[in-house]
Amino acid sequence: MGGGIGQSLLKDGLARVQREVDSVFDAMLPVPQDSRARLVEAMRYAAIGGGKRVRPLLLVSTAELFGVDRDRALRAACAVEAIHVYSLIHDDLPCMDNDDLRHGKPTLHKAFDDATAVLAGDSLHALAFEILADPETSADPFIRVELISTLGRASGKDGMAGGQMMDMMAEEQDYDLHTITRLQQLKTGALLAASVEMGAIMGHVPPEGRAHLRAYSRDIGLAFQIADDLLDHEGDETKAGKALRKDDGQGKQTFVTLMGAEKAREQAKALVEQAVGHLAAHGEDARMLAAVARYIVERDR
Amino acid sequence: MGGGIGQSLLKDGLARVQREVDSVFDAMLPVPQDSRARLVEAMRYAAIGGGKRVRPLLLVSTAELFGVDRDRALRAACAVEAIHVYSLIHDDLPCMDNDDLRHGKPTLHKAFDDATAVLAGDSLHALAFEILADPETSADPFIRVELISTLGRASGKDGMAGGQMMDMMAEEQDYDLHTITRLQQLKTGALLAASVEMGAIMGHVPPEGRAHLRAYSRDIGLAFQIADDLLDHEGDETKAGKALRKDDGQGKQTFVTLMGAEKAREQAKALVEQAVGHLAAHGEDARMLAAVARYIVERDR
Repeated sequence: MGGGIGQSLLKDGLARVQREVDSVFDAMLPVPQDSRARLVEAMRYAAIGGGKRVRPLLLVSTAELFGVDRDRALRAACAVEAIHVYSLIHDDLPCMDNDDLRHGKPTLHKAFDDATAVLAGDSLHALAFEILADPETSADPFIRVELISTLGRASGKDGMAGGQMMDMMAEEQDYDLHTITRLQQLKTGALLAASVEMGAIMGHVPPEGRAHLRAYSRDIGLAFQIADDLLDHEGDETKAGKALRKDDGQGKQTFVTLMGAEKAREQAKALVEQAVGHLAAHGEDARMLAAVARYIVERDR
Repeated sequence: MGGGIGQSLLKDGLARVQREVDSVFDAMLPVPQDSRARLVEAMRYAAIGGGKRVRPLLLVSTAELFGVDRDRALRAACAVEAIHVYSLIHDDLPCMDNDDLRHGKPTLHKAFDDATAVLAGDSLHALAFEILADPETSADPFIRVELISTLGRASGKDGMAGGQMMDMMAEEQDYDLHTITRLQQLKTGALLAASVEMGAIMGHVPPEGRAHLRAYSRDIGLAFQIADDLLDHEGDETKAGKALRKDDGQGKQTFVTLMGAEKAREQAKALVEQAVGHLAAHGEDARMLAAVARYIVERDR
């Protein structure tokens, strides 16, 4: 699991899952022959191409640990990614973060219009649950329902959307490190953790068997957000494919403003090593999950 | 099933389900003690109080035909209503219909702000699927998954959201009666039909046993929209609790512009009688569903 081997494993793993996710979305989103065409074209614009696909890679890599069929795992991975993509579309809207650039291309509301962006986000949101409810994702309805319940909780008011609300209030309120940690656990951590959890659910791992994976997710979730704050603070906009230095401009507290860049970087690295430690029982089988953890702090976008 | 008796039955049925839906939402949406409070307050503002609750009444009345426990049916009814409420929140946004008034009070983005309205809509959307995935809605995971699949399809690109997209394109395209009918089947009809279908699913009615209920839903869905167009054309804004005469101003084709008010009114009445006819096999047990059908063309809001 050295840096070089881990990096090449990760690069191949990401490239493969990027191709696969694009291909599943392409098949799921045929453009209809009526005036809904514009809606589906907008969904395709946002869902296909671009995106690191970290969440899908987490889900399929966890599922692989437990021998889950890859095509089924990929469907669940696309459900998680559909939620992630819809949240980016709505986040980028003028009334939210008002961003013009995402994955190096114009944001959806720039390429289409605001109303289409709202509707395309809503439609991707519904698509996630349609995918999970379909027997093609799992023949076992217990599994399908547990996947839906896990994703619903991770994305709603007690997960991602709740974290986004806390983030919106951050400009007015001086959050301390405890509150910033809680905010990020909801805003970013919940969906990353759901990806890992859903892979284990598909592998019929009971809740008590998922504790070490939850610990792994908690650590990489936090490391991911610290890395994001560092990127926002000192990254390259061209590589990132989006506007940076926004937190600084809004006077928001982040891990970097609260801890300083140097300490934040050390903390992220320590979290990643701790995360990798939680995978010990899986030995070499977990090398992709270990590589994802390391990638999270080393990425430049 | 005469007018007078039907009206009093309907009035009591609506009043009861309005109280019950408010009470379920109240219990499901406790305000948290952190900065997510604003999000949950916004969800409560939109979900509790106001709203005719036609969809919940359709769901519980259908479920009652098949002996479903009322508390369980009410949970599913709140899932459908959560979808309906989220769609109204997003529809009212400045970038969509830009409405200031809903159910006689300021729209959510007016009472809070646009960003909170986007997030509250998204959170109610997720809540719908969280409710349906919960064993309290049905002990049978097959039933839960079928409910989720039905609601997901009815609300996404091949249902409500698809219909809204067609509606948005209506200003630029001259739709004929066939296309307007298809648009309305998606935009309004899909969720009304899902309400009835979900009641039958909870009653373990197999798909082949639901054909007459589907026929009922198709007819009331169309009648509902014709009645809406008539209300928009000649209704009282104070009673309706929202802005009217918008279609006229935008030069959009509607059932009223295409058929004329008189013929549209006759058509709506004929559809309602046809809908009631589909319920014949249930006899007196279906009197509430018959009353809902009649209410749909007689309502003034």
